[in-house]
Amino acid sequence: MNNRYISINHQLYSEEDAKISVSDLSIQRGFGIFDFLKTINNKTIFLEEHFDRFYNSAKEMNLTVGVDRAVLKNSIDQLMKSNNLPNSGLKFILTGGFSEDGYTMSQPNLILTQVPFEIDKTSFDKGMRLVTYPHQRQLPTVKTIDYLQAIRLQSYIKENLSDDVLYHHHGSIRECPRANFFIVKGNKVITPKTDILWGITRSKILGLKLEDITLLEQDFNLSDLVKADEAFISSSTKNALPILAIDGKKIGDGKPGEITRKINEHLYQLIGIA
Amino acid sequence: MNNRYISINHQLYSEEDAKISVSDLSIQRGFGIFDFLKTINNKTIFLEEHFDRFYNSAKEMNLTVGVDRAVLKNSIDQLMKSNNLPNSGLKFILTGGFSEDGYTMSQPNLILTQVPFEIDKTSFDKGMRLVTYPHQRQLPTVKTIDYLQAIRLQSYIKENLSDDVLYHHHGSIRECPRANFFIVKGNKVITPKTDILWGITRSKILGLKLEDITLLEQDFNLSDLVKADEAFISSSTKNALPILAIDGKKIGDGKPGEITRKINEHLYQLIGIA
Repeated sequence: MNNRYISINHQLYSEEDAKISVSDLSIQRGFGIFDFLKTINNKTIFLEEHFDRFYNSAKEMNLTVGVDRAVLKNSIDQLMKSNNLPNSGLKFILTGGFSEDGYTMSQPNLILTQVPFEIDKTSFDKGMRLVTYPHQRQLPTVKTIDYLQAIRLQSYIKENLSDDVLYHHHGSIRECPRANFFIVKGNKVITPKTDILWGITRSKILGLKLEDITLLEQDFNLSDLVKADEAFISSSTKNALPILAIDGKKIGDGKPGEITRKINEHLYQLIGIA
Repeated sequence: MNNRYISINHQLYSEEDAKISVSDLSIQRGFGIFDFLKTINNKTIFLEEHFDRFYNSAKEMNLTVGVDRAVLKNSIDQLMKSNNLPNSGLKFILTGGFSEDGYTMSQPNLILTQVPFEIDKTSFDKGMRLVTYPHQRQLPTVKTIDYLQAIRLQSYIKENLSDDVLYHHHGSIRECPRANFFIVKGNKVITPKTDILWGITRSKILGLKLEDITLLEQDFNLSDLVKADEAFISSSTKNALPILAIDGKKIGDGKPGEITRKINEHLYQLIGIA
């Protein structure tokens, strides 16, 4: 245990006291949403975009956050002040609340956690290896706490000497459990558009103005992977991270690609660490 | 709060003290399995069948229950003795455990709860109304805690003046969130077979020897519903419960059917309350 604080319904608790009743609908029925962002030098990155998604996820699940952005921001500030972790990952979880019958929604519970997180620029050159798996996330555009398949596959990923799993639906590429997926072919950077979570980093990449490079939202298949020149994943923690192999097969020359590097550098600029 | 006890990792807690750390993977990632059975006059009903499914669900999710059936049975007995609720619903939940990074599985947590539950024989004649919704449960044969869609649809069910939702996948009927579904046509009793949870009550029904009645596991479609003579759902709490209307349309003559009644009476016999 560290001396970190956790906020539950806008009250601070030490980590060891941060507990909730087992009647909560997250425990009873896996029912909750969340969002996650990073802080750099005590600055929240893309807070409004994460709030947009968080409030939208709540709405899609018929949950109410219960407070407006100013109050939520205030609780985040309070947590950050108490924890004194300038570089961190901030998570806000909203559950279905304590339920007397273990099924009916009640007043939601809001949990804010903060963990140390430093961007490791050397991870770019190490890259990552993926293994594919057939799975379509339910309610894909909503950031729910449902990671049943991802957690279940933790041993499968290890057995396949991989770092993460890449979902496809009948061969059509979707996403990783916590990251969006991109391939590069020639001067085209392509990311799936159907039934995926709209990552904030993904949207930042699609908004980049890059000379001689075309950014496309367009579905593609398993068989397109080996034909790609580069591949990478995007997320708040990983920025643009090269994928060097998928299902044991090299992507391109098996080294981090130059277009991926350029995109990652643009992301570093956007978040102020270039 | 009542004076009921809850067992967490084989220790008894009062209901108000039954809390777990928010680092648990059920809260962080909706990751857990469960099972549920009823007790009648202090007797657990179909305990071994529920154990079979619970241990199998754990295996499918790469979770370990950590104790054998004898130890689990002992914890259930201890809870039942403390609560003194002869007629009850008993639930055992197994989560992914406390996770330092909020993602990696650790030692699972086992939560046992017991709530009062009396079989209300008058509910048979009241029956229920369903509204259909397109949804395929993920990992359908595993009894996970994932009820995201079901809880989300609680307001939808009310808006449609219904009591529960009936899932179909591209028109092919599946199940209700907490019950299996059956139709009766002539002397045939038919229940879907594809991508559903194998309910214990469903399997007991399929095992009945009924004169002049054929029991079939066979998929059917939305369009078959209005052609059915009777419809019913099955579950540990509902036994065989008539469905009188679906999507606002009467099933048969809109009254509980005689074959459904016969099946329900056989279930009452099986659980010793005929």
